[in-house]
Amino acid sequence: MKKKNKKVNAAILIIGNEILSGRTQDKNIAFISNWLNSNCGISVNEVRIIPDVEKIIIKNVKSLSNKFNYVFTTGGIGPTHDDITAQSISKSFKLKYGYHKEAYSILEKYYGKKKFNDGRKKMAKMPSGAKLIYNPSSAAPGFMTKNVLSFPGVPSILNSMIENCKKYLIKGLKVHSKTINLFTVESNISKQLEDIQKKYIKIVEIGSYPFFRLGKIGVSIVSRSSSRKNLIKVNKDLKKLIKLKKIKILKI
Amino acid sequence: MKKKNKKVNAAILIIGNEILSGRTQDKNIAFISNWLNSNCGISVNEVRIIPDVEKIIIKNVKSLSNKFNYVFTTGGIGPTHDDITAQSISKSFKLKYGYHKEAYSILEKYYGKKKFNDGRKKMAKMPSGAKLIYNPSSAAPGFMTKNVLSFPGVPSILNSMIENCKKYLIKGLKVHSKTINLFTVESNISKQLEDIQKKYIKIVEIGSYPFFRLGKIGVSIVSRSSSRKNLIKVNKDLKKLIKLKKIKILKI
Repeated sequence: MKKKNKKVNAAILIIGNEILSGRTQDKNIAFISNWLNSNCGISVNEVRIIPDVEKIIIKNVKSLSNKFNYVFTTGGIGPTHDDITAQSISKSFKLKYGYHKEAYSILEKYYGKKKFNDGRKKMAKMPSGAKLIYNPSSAAPGFMTKNVLSFPGVPSILNSMIENCKKYLIKGLKVHSKTINLFTVESNISKQLEDIQKKYIKIVEIGSYPFFRLGKIGVSIVSRSSSRKNLIKVNKDLKKLIKLKKIKILKI
Repeated sequence: MKKKNKKVNAAILIIGNEILSGRTQDKNIAFISNWLNSNCGISVNEVRIIPDVEKIIIKNVKSLSNKFNYVFTTGGIGPTHDDITAQSISKSFKLKYGYHKEAYSILEKYYGKKKFNDGRKKMAKMPSGAKLIYNPSSAAPGFMTKNVLSFPGVPSILNSMIENCKKYLIKGLKVHSKTINLFTVESNISKQLEDIQKKYIKIVEIGSYPFFRLGKIGVSIVSRSSSRKNLIKVNKDLKKLIKLKKIKILKI
């Protein structure tokens, strides 16, 4: 991983009709976002889910790669006709789409010369100049084109590969978070919470999320900041509010 | 629900730092998409997940509401400082943001005059002219502004309300789907599958998705079309391919 930067951000582009149609529940967004923040200090600032349509992929790759430091795509890099991520990214950056020498040799070795059919060969085709992201599960590598990193859509395979893209990324400031779960309703604390947020505006981001547990209603107060010190300050103010309002804390 | 139209589409706009950060796993996308297709014949063509930032919400509401027949937003309509969906939508359409008379009276009745504090009153503030989407779980209504329908982010509440927006929607053609699960690998059938897709191009959309079950690798072939007849035709071709390749079908 390269030198530390101040703020580094990313977008996730999920390519796949199966997620859009609701047939498949996405599991990659939360995984990538958590991994990027914990391991690289990179914040995901936008996610898009789009269909397997070339011109839509091209438009979104162009727009997101201009707007964010990195774009993580998932899906569409397998051997079938609906896998069109690699050729679409090639077109986005006007790069040649063809065999990546090392990817070809990895796949040929994995399948054996006899079983290395056209479908499998397709997985070695990438935008010219792409850098490989090795795949310890099923050989077919992901790849990085400019600032766009492409992964398969199958969560177990993606999870096994993600560590291998770390070397290509510039590290940013990690966002730390602190959660307090309260047995109260949001409207009981909304005024005071707003005051605390105003006091720490632009330093700590405070979110309020209702939950239902053990048959009771509660609120999770989540504070997020790249400074642990400021999180502790916010926490002190929250503790005062909790005492004042005599609210019970849920310990998990 | 209004008259039947040919193709009706929608986008989903998930507003919430908690989803972007990976803290919370989204459950609304698959639910809304399945519900819209099954109940209204409306296809979700794009999803975006964005942070609780006013100018970003405004930009996305404008762009998606121009591009799609409907936009479904989730999150940010509660009583706390980070709930800014209603005022952001008002600004997107240059509409006044203020109390909705009926929403105010619903909430006042629900909480009782004494407990109807400022936080709770905030949930009655909406873009001028908004139509209510009633909430049988926790009273605070969702609302429809132009072609944008706003729901809370808590899945159980959203699920309980969605039926109440049906009357505002124009019905489209339902997309039917058929899935065959095969014990094979994608590259074994990719060539033939592409030929079948080409034969039914623009009539049936065929997707291929790897799965892992009972310790085995498999492929789900999903055909989607608004015509059941064409799905049956594709299925016949798939059955021929399965027979030819001697592939075992997983029955679930």
